[in-house]
Amino acid sequence: MRIETLFTPSEIEESAIKGKLTVVIDVLRASTTIAFAISNGCDWIIPVATVESATNLASSLDRRMTLLGGERGGKKIDGFDLGNSPQEYIPDVVENKSIILTTSNGTRAITACKGAKEILVASFVNISTVADHICNSTSQVVNIVCAGDGNHFGLDDCVCAGMLISEIVKSRQCDLSDGSEAARQLYDLHKGSIIDMLRNCNHGRHLINIGFESDIDICSRVDSLKVLPVVRDGRISAKRTRRK
Amino acid sequence: MRIETLFTPSEIEESAIKGKLTVVIDVLRASTTIAFAISNGCDWIIPVATVESATNLASSLDRRMTLLGGERGGKKIDGFDLGNSPQEYIPDVVENKSIILTTSNGTRAITACKGAKEILVASFVNISTVADHICNSTSQVVNIVCAGDGNHFGLDDCVCAGMLISEIVKSRQCDLSDGSEAARQLYDLHKGSIIDMLRNCNHGRHLINIGFESDIDICSRVDSLKVLPVVRDGRISAKRTRRK
Repeated sequence: MRIETLFTPSEIEESAIKGKLTVVIDVLRASTTIAFAISNGCDWIIPVATVESATNLASSLDRRMTLLGGERGGKKIDGFDLGNSPQEYIPDVVENKSIILTTSNGTRAITACKGAKEILVASFVNISTVADHICNSTSQVVNIVCAGDGNHFGLDDCVCAGMLISEIVKSRQCDLSDGSEAARQLYDLHKGSIIDMLRNCNHGRHLINIGFESDIDICSRVDSLKVLPVVRDGRISAKRTRRK
Repeated sequence: MRIETLFTPSEIEESAIKGKLTVVIDVLRASTTIAFAISNGCDWIIPVATVESATNLASSLDRRMTLLGGERGGKKIDGFDLGNSPQEYIPDVVENKSIILTTSNGTRAITACKGAKEILVASFVNISTVADHICNSTSQVVNIVCAGDGNHFGLDDCVCAGMLISEIVKSRQCDLSDGSEAARQLYDLHKGSIIDMLRNCNHGRHLINIGFESDIDICSRVDSLKVLPVVRDGRISAKRTRRK
């Protein structure tokens, strides 16, 4: 299995993504928030790239069944129902609802992967579930796309990619790109202190500054959820195993 | 001093580069080759992005004084005088000549930095000279642009960026982006074995496969040259210190 790791969506080439198993990582916080929302019973999430697309889409749907969520600069968007904190996406709020979500980096990375065979959403909270699915797949190539931080490398996403790769290589023979190898090495450096790495990375410090310190603790909890968010036809929902 | 590290030219935003001190790194091999050519007495190097631009430009210049150099896939381009091996750019060949150079990643990265205040070309062979210049500058922001490998992260360039950052932080108080911090950490991991890292990275393995193993040894020799290649008006030449 060949594993390519892209540290920003700007590295995406349509021809390299097309038809391939792809994983999108935005630890702080879109991937984590998506895992919580799906795990807590929302019907689906529609990731959109811009605030305008989100509000336009919401106006065409039944607002009693639809929540509008997202952030810019880490803060809830004016007029939206929810921000981008996983702590907002609890069962009482999201159960049986559709969510339209737009975030600065994560949902843009997901929409940029259009054309992939399958897009999974990964973060520390569901990393073993994602790793197991990849190890059991027949895919020969996996692309890991880190959302990054404003089109730049984000250490949080890179270390999470490294943990995913470390899990996969335990049971599959892999050929790693330089990016995958670097991610694995950086995970090895930080694996004893994921929460400290999240607190000290550029985006973690920003979140602490604007009052979201408790989200960092939640985003650091490895395997706290068993959920596999998958993007199908532009919507994210839980992947269910079909048994014959 | 704020140090941003970009792992591929696709991360470049014109507004972030404009007016800033910028360093381009392509260890294997354009940056190293440029250092050798300048150190060995060529008048200047004109970096161009495409083979077509290179041949068009050559046809407008005096071919007795101009060499056409470059590679695609690591190999010399048909009809060119030189490839992209630093071993070709010896005094007997390059002295008092102009060189038009086009390479897959390095010269494209240099041309993508148009608009920067000053563009320096760095590799292991001239790293202390580049670091000294940056430490003595009044710049508040330095952008390090890694050429990468076919629009993806290259470990060779990242570790070299990390060494440059490690040198700078010895004498300047620095604020590091996540990319700069990751590069510094990866340099710390590999500093005992730069040549092994170069042999084992994706592009190093490719160069060994196509017969350029001896270039890797040359590219690994830290501070073997004291030269500061700088891009001015689209031409690379040696930066000379002006004394009043």
